[in-house]
Amino acid sequence: MFAVTILGNNSALPAYDRHPTAQVVTLNDQLLLIDCGEGTQMQLSRYKVKRGKLNHIFISHLHGDHYFGLIGLITSMGLLGREQPLYLYAPAAMESIIKLQLEVAVTTLPFELVFHPLTKEETILDTPKFSVACFSTQHRIPCWGFIVREKRLPRKIDKEKVLAFEIPAAFYPSLKQGYDYTNKEGTVIYNHQVTIPNTAPRSYAFCADTIYDERIAEIAKDVSMIYHEATYLKAMEDRALARFHSTTTQAASIALKANAHHLLLGHFSSKYEELNEYLAEAIEVFPKTQLAIEGVTFIVRN
Amino acid sequence: MFAVTILGNNSALPAYDRHPTAQVVTLNDQLLLIDCGEGTQMQLSRYKVKRGKLNHIFISHLHGDHYFGLIGLITSMGLLGREQPLYLYAPAAMESIIKLQLEVAVTTLPFELVFHPLTKEETILDTPKFSVACFSTQHRIPCWGFIVREKRLPRKIDKEKVLAFEIPAAFYPSLKQGYDYTNKEGTVIYNHQVTIPNTAPRSYAFCADTIYDERIAEIAKDVSMIYHEATYLKAMEDRALARFHSTTTQAASIALKANAHHLLLGHFSSKYEELNEYLAEAIEVFPKTQLAIEGVTFIVRN
Repeated sequence: MFAVTILGNNSALPAYDRHPTAQVVTLNDQLLLIDCGEGTQMQLSRYKVKRGKLNHIFISHLHGDHYFGLIGLITSMGLLGREQPLYLYAPAAMESIIKLQLEVAVTTLPFELVFHPLTKEETILDTPKFSVACFSTQHRIPCWGFIVREKRLPRKIDKEKVLAFEIPAAFYPSLKQGYDYTNKEGTVIYNHQVTIPNTAPRSYAFCADTIYDERIAEIAKDVSMIYHEATYLKAMEDRALARFHSTTTQAASIALKANAHHLLLGHFSSKYEELNEYLAEAIEVFPKTQLAIEGVTFIVRN
Repeated sequence: MFAVTILGNNSALPAYDRHPTAQVVTLNDQLLLIDCGEGTQMQLSRYKVKRGKLNHIFISHLHGDHYFGLIGLITSMGLLGREQPLYLYAPAAMESIIKLQLEVAVTTLPFELVFHPLTKEETILDTPKFSVACFSTQHRIPCWGFIVREKRLPRKIDKEKVLAFEIPAAFYPSLKQGYDYTNKEGTVIYNHQVTIPNTAPRSYAFCADTIYDERIAEIAKDVSMIYHEATYLKAMEDRALARFHSTTTQAASIALKANAHHLLLGHFSSKYEELNEYLAEAIEVFPKTQLAIEGVTFIVRN
C-alpha cells in the first residue's frame, strides 16, 4: 500500500469547507503527515486516520496555512497518552514555536519529540522500505518539497524454475536479494535464471508552495505521482508570479517535463468555489491529472 | 440584542464534532470573541458570524484549547484586508507567541493589533453601552474569567405625562438621562413623574476553566447569565479537583449561590459522547440550566 490521503487542499483562507494544506502518505503500516494546517487533527478524526501509526511529520514552510494545526495535534497526542517518539522535519524556527507554546501551558509531552531542522537538500529519513528527501522550492520564505521513494522491491521467486534446479527453500531469501546459487556439483545457477523482477519502486513528490520552476521537474524526474500546487487558474499567471505561487497550466507543465506518471493538483485559492476549471485547464497539458479532493485517498501507481 | 453564540463547547480533545472553547458575545452591533480554540475561524464561517464587527478578543488562559485558533484567525483577517484595529486581551505571553509566528512568516498585518495583557482584576474595556471586567480563576496556570455588563439603559418617556405637563420635545433626551424639568412658571417636574425605568441592565459572566470556587459566585452576583465550565459529571469530582476543573453539580451550585438568572454549561470532556446527563445533573441543583450547544445563540435575559 502506497497512497496519499488529502486532509486539506485549500490555500491560506479556509473556504467552502476546504481546509488548509495537510496530506497523509500511507506506506504499508507507516503514516507520514505532510503539512499540518489548522484543523488537521479534526480532519484526521473525520477521515479515521490512525494517529498511532503516525510517526513522522514534515512541514514544508512556516506560512500558517501549512503548520497552524501542528501544536494542537502534538498536544492532543500527549493528552491521548502517546509514548512512542514523534519525528518532526521542519524549518528550524518550528522548534522554538512549539517550545514556547508548551512552556506557557506548563506542559510536558509524555513522548519524545525528535526535531530535524530542514537546512539543505538531503535524505532526511531512510528506512529499509522507503526514504524521504527534501528539496528547496522558490517561495516567499524558505520552503521545502519532499520526495518519498520506495526502496527497490525484492525479486520474485520463479517457482517452477527453483524446483527444476532443486534449490533448497532456505536459499530463497538470498535469491530474492539477487544472489546467485551454486549447487553441490559446483554449477552456478544465475539469479536471473530463477527469479523475476518485482514491480518498479514507486515514488511521490510533494512540491510544496512554489513559483513555476523547471528545476522541480528535474528533481521529480520519473516519479509515480507528483503533487504540485495550483493556487490560480492560468489567466492569473501574473498574480501567481507576484505571490510566488503557480497556475494550473504551470503545474501540469512541470508534471509533463518531469515525465511523472500522475499529477495531483491542490492549494486552491479561496477565490474559486468550483474547481472544475482547475481540472479542465490542467488536463489540456497533462491528461493524467486529478484534483486533490479532501477525504479522497489516491493510490500511488507507476 | 445581547446574546452568546457558542462556537466550541468541548474540553481539550476535539471529539464528536465538538470543538474547543470559543464564544461570540453580541452586543447590538459589536461582537466580542471569548477564547479561540483551534478551528474558530472555520466555526465563524460555519455559523455566519461577521468578522468585520469583531473588534475585541478575550483569551482566558494559555492552554491550547482556548487559543490555538487565534493566530489563524488574525492572519486570515489580514488576508481579507482588515484595516480597523483589533483589540486583544490575554495573558502577557500571548503577545510573544503571535509576534514569533508573524515574524517567521515575514508577515506584517495590515491592521493594528492592540494588546492588553491581563495582569489584575480590573475593567479592561469600557464603552458608552457596556463594559468588560476580568477576574482570576483557579486553574493549573493563570486563568481569567470575564464579565460583560450593559450600562444602565436610559429611562423611558411616559408620553401621556410629558404632554400633560407640556414639556417641550427638545427636553426629552435630558429626561431620559434622569434630569428634572423646570417649567416657565418655575415649577419643578420631577423626573420620576414623567418617565418610567427601562429594563434592568443585563450581564454575562464567562467563568473560564476553574475548580469549584465560591468566590466566583460573589464576583458573578446577580448576573443575567453565567457560563460555567463542567468538564465532568458529578461522580468524577475527585478527578475534576485533581485537574483543576469542575463538575455539573459544582457549576450549578455556583450559579445558585450567585443568584444568576440563567446558567450555561460547557467545556465537556471528550469522555462523553452524549450530553444529556450533564443537563440532568445540573438542573437538579439549578433548574434554569442550558447546555452550550455549538451553533446555538442564547439570548441574555434577566
